[in-house]
Amino acid sequence: MKATIYEGNRTFSVIEKELEEPIKGEVRIKVAYSGVCGTDVHIYHGMMDKRVNIPVTIGHEMSGVIDALGNGVSGFSIGEKVVVRPLDDRGAKPSDKGFNHICEDLKFIGIDSPGSMQQYWNVPAFTLHKLKPETDLKLAALIEPLAVAVHDVRLSELKAGETAVVLGGGPIGLLVAMVAKETGAQVIVSEVNENRVTKAKELGLNAVNPVNIDLVEYVKAQTEGRRADVVFEVAGVQQALDVMTEIAGIRGRILMVAIHGQKKEVDLFKFFWKELKLIGARVYEKEDYEKAIDLITKNELPFEQMITEVQPLSNIQQVFEGIDNNPDGLKVLMDCQA
Amino acid sequence: MKATIYEGNRTFSVIEKELEEPIKGEVRIKVAYSGVCGTDVHIYHGMMDKRVNIPVTIGHEMSGVIDALGNGVSGFSIGEKVVVRPLDDRGAKPSDKGFNHICEDLKFIGIDSPGSMQQYWNVPAFTLHKLKPETDLKLAALIEPLAVAVHDVRLSELKAGETAVVLGGGPIGLLVAMVAKETGAQVIVSEVNENRVTKAKELGLNAVNPVNIDLVEYVKAQTEGRRADVVFEVAGVQQALDVMTEIAGIRGRILMVAIHGQKKEVDLFKFFWKELKLIGARVYEKEDYEKAIDLITKNELPFEQMITEVQPLSNIQQVFEGIDNNPDGLKVLMDCQA
Repeated sequence: MKATIYEGNRTFSVIEKELEEPIKGEVRIKVAYSGVCGTDVHIYHGMMDKRVNIPVTIGHEMSGVIDALGNGVSGFSIGEKVVVRPLDDRGAKPSDKGFNHICEDLKFIGIDSPGSMQQYWNVPAFTLHKLKPETDLKLAALIEPLAVAVHDVRLSELKAGETAVVLGGGPIGLLVAMVAKETGAQVIVSEVNENRVTKAKELGLNAVNPVNIDLVEYVKAQTEGRRADVVFEVAGVQQALDVMTEIAGIRGRILMVAIHGQKKEVDLFKFFWKELKLIGARVYEKEDYEKAIDLITKNELPFEQMITEVQPLSNIQQVFEGIDNNPDGLKVLMDCQA
Repeated sequence: MKATIYEGNRTFSVIEKELEEPIKGEVRIKVAYSGVCGTDVHIYHGMMDKRVNIPVTIGHEMSGVIDALGNGVSGFSIGEKVVVRPLDDRGAKPSDKGFNHICEDLKFIGIDSPGSMQQYWNVPAFTLHKLKPETDLKLAALIEPLAVAVHDVRLSELKAGETAVVLGGGPIGLLVAMVAKETGAQVIVSEVNENRVTKAKELGLNAVNPVNIDLVEYVKAQTEGRRADVVFEVAGVQQALDVMTEIAGIRGRILMVAIHGQKKEVDLFKFFWKELKLIGARVYEKEDYEKAIDLITKNELPFEQMITEVQPLSNIQQVFEGIDNNPDGLKVLMDCQA
């Protein structure tokens, strides 16, 4: 079988290795597609070398088919289409209060242990979610990032008739915007890259460029002065933090989806004055996966257009180099059988 | 009648003036006691000269007795004991979404219009809450700050069996701690002033000094590693912001009670990682006042000990100078009839 290996120093290799039998409680998946996540790019940039166990196969956005069952695995059959919810929460403790998806000792499969950017992947059976036989496996590789978006929107408690502003129109931002719109809310995407603004519009979203317009005035005008009921901070830059407390209206909820590696300046006075809420949101829970699977199965949203490139596994080095050179692209999938 | 006037430049005067008849919809209150709030001290320091209409009578924490009724006032009688909820929300608009206590055009009576540090005070009847005839008017002057604490604890959704840490053991911090403890939660007060730590202990609270102990380790030890379910940030300093995201456990709620005049550094990564919530909380709603009145009427908590000084109105200048010189004191009341 073919596997890709992150070797450190912005380098991937592609190797041939023996097919491994799944151990007790695990299944072997024939991986169909594996999407490239921002975290994978972060790993490629060497930003997570302390955490990943180099040399290692990375990847956690995927779809595939069950290829072999380890001892003690029941409820699954060879040939079934599945996706993996890559959270190994076997270390959960009572102090995690049942929030096992973010438990203190969580192992993220594909970061803390080998991932999906290979032809076959052995994973614990408890991470699996079944797909319908008719589900498109290319679209199914979007289930993991879509589940992130579903989780964010669920924690925001966004309701029909409310207005949400999504700061940042990358893959997660656009998925958040799609899911938010699906609730019946008015959604505004704010994105500084003009090509991504165009892409967002092609996806049927209302997108603006805050370099060209006054975002605060725009949001006020769109809401009869009410401002945003919900803001999703998906941009990860100081400008987004500065504007999020301006565009949020009274009792507005701000979802912290972006990962801020350093401490950042926040206008806490606005939190006090308008009784704003800041809500941290990380990965997903089981119900978010089920909802994401349902959305992909129905396929009523323009998910297809989110996939801007499909490349064979052997091209992994060029794919990661290409992402650095093209900030306009959205989701790149690796075809793990090509 | 006697009235105090803030003249600007850290100066109060005490004047004699004519008793005013209440206009339509207003009542005249014979003020019993008026407490000194941190905001009043802020005004005295000249920090709010742009907002207050100098020369002006300030004060908004009070108790009193109805002395005269303007036209159109019904449901109240002369001689009834009352407190004022000093929020004039007559400018509320649909864009305030019904959160009139923090509406965009809110006028805070005693800051934006004349306050209670005078012998008689005319206020709109809709701001009144009735007290029982047996209610102690000294304690009743604590209802306004107590309602702040009740509001903070209500928005935190603190439950019995959870652990709350209160950062800052000034008057509001201690009232928050008392109300939090009343819910059946474990409460830890963190305060750097050793005299206030002693005072908190005298009030029956568990109080620690983070200068002497490692607060993070202490909170972990008290919660079997779970850390705090709720943190009340009442200190208003960077150290509190730094520690709040450390001591909060998974899905912990952090109440932003303190007023941070400038943007401050916040560890947003921790919000993401532990799915923390930051909840802004300002003033109170009607139900918070009712709960505060109920607590004062029952008088089962050590409210009496919160009052560290009672002074005649004519001593106002010395009172404000004294507060600056004595950081250990808690609540100072002005006796408005003395």
